[in-house]
Amino acid sequence: MNSKGRLYGVGVGPGDPELLTLKALRLLQAAPVIAYQSAIDKDSIARQIVSQYLPGNQIEVLFHLPRALEPEKAKSIYDQEVQPIGQHLAAGRDVVVLCEGDPFFYGSFMYIFTRLSDEYQTEVVPGVSSLMACPVSLGVPFTYYNDILTVLPATLPTETLISHLLATDAAAIMKLGRHFTKIRDILHQLGLASRAKYIERATTTQQRIVPLDEVNPEAVPYFSMIVIPTKQQL
Amino acid sequence: MNSKGRLYGVGVGPGDPELLTLKALRLLQAAPVIAYQSAIDKDSIARQIVSQYLPGNQIEVLFHLPRALEPEKAKSIYDQEVQPIGQHLAAGRDVVVLCEGDPFFYGSFMYIFTRLSDEYQTEVVPGVSSLMACPVSLGVPFTYYNDILTVLPATLPTETLISHLLATDAAAIMKLGRHFTKIRDILHQLGLASRAKYIERATTTQQRIVPLDEVNPEAVPYFSMIVIPTKQQL
Repeated sequence: MNSKGRLYGVGVGPGDPELLTLKALRLLQAAPVIAYQSAIDKDSIARQIVSQYLPGNQIEVLFHLPRALEPEKAKSIYDQEVQPIGQHLAAGRDVVVLCEGDPFFYGSFMYIFTRLSDEYQTEVVPGVSSLMACPVSLGVPFTYYNDILTVLPATLPTETLISHLLATDAAAIMKLGRHFTKIRDILHQLGLASRAKYIERATTTQQRIVPLDEVNPEAVPYFSMIVIPTKQQL
Repeated sequence: MNSKGRLYGVGVGPGDPELLTLKALRLLQAAPVIAYQSAIDKDSIARQIVSQYLPGNQIEVLFHLPRALEPEKAKSIYDQEVQPIGQHLAAGRDVVVLCEGDPFFYGSFMYIFTRLSDEYQTEVVPGVSSLMACPVSLGVPFTYYNDILTVLPATLPTETLISHLLATDAAAIMKLGRHFTKIRDILHQLGLASRAKYIERATTTQQRIVPLDEVNPEAVPYFSMIVIPTKQQL
């Protein structure tokens, strides 16, 4: 007899609550426990996205998986942060972890998955990623049939970014934040600035599309992206 | 007064009907006309995905946008194939085009978008892409925080594939079909075969996961992918 709870990693999409999947909605409403990431002193984006769907009688677990730490330090913090989730599972309660976008695509759920999926039955539900939502919100067809697409975190060194941008047909640059100026300068240097489109908080009520050279580098949020769509025309 | 119909490009996800978004469901049930791609003598995959949700009183328009044609020939065929959709829009009827996965991510909807969106009010709804669904179905966390991800069509020349695979942290290889053997040999040559995971028809009732060296190269469907997940561990 297996009386352990089941772990669900559920993608809730890029921001618009209507971009939730039917499966995500069913699972998150049925679970006795929901868990979500939240930065210290900030509301959880994932919980905001689904708030209108919550039945109101669920246990809620917050966790905080800080980014950009040394690997060894991160591991011990993550080990600790997943413990409350593990305790609910051990007590037989299913836990739905709400994940912005898609759980396995640059998602913090993966740190929970690698720690708990050996011990507890686990199901992951893919979601609409910002990688798909940003080109759609910008109105630019992204990749055609034989295009190469490269997804680049803005945190990478300049030389790495340049060599990849020169070798690809289409690109998405994520995690802009304080790296925005570096990226903008590279795009001008490579002659890509006119093709590059900037968007922040895509599909939410705070969505903003700003011409690249008018973006304030001091105010670029984490949830922003530069999309370089294909050159092909058909 | 605008009496023209509106054009919707609606992502219906990778295959599981429950991976439709709430927005996709609302729009496709409300439209007087739905349109979908269908190969000659084959059922439309996009229509199959949503068939259980259709109210049964809609006009249905089939189109066929063959792939892998010379660009000039393709353009004239595409011009012709979108005409029935344009006629419904001109007559004031909204048309929802059903798109497997996501409309702007290697999607045939883009050929319709570029032809009709100047003339008709157009809304695109992003969907869950196979790029997210395949790693999830394989159970492999795909990309971590500073990873580079490269999406490669298998149709590319061997040298191009090798240089990109050597330069990336994670990869997805699409459009395998008759190129499977070339890809498998490259992965062995680069020492990536043990990390590479093969899946076909992800999230559908016909989903199959097969070890790379046991795949029958003669029977690799269009809807298949090789996923090379990140090496990072946290």
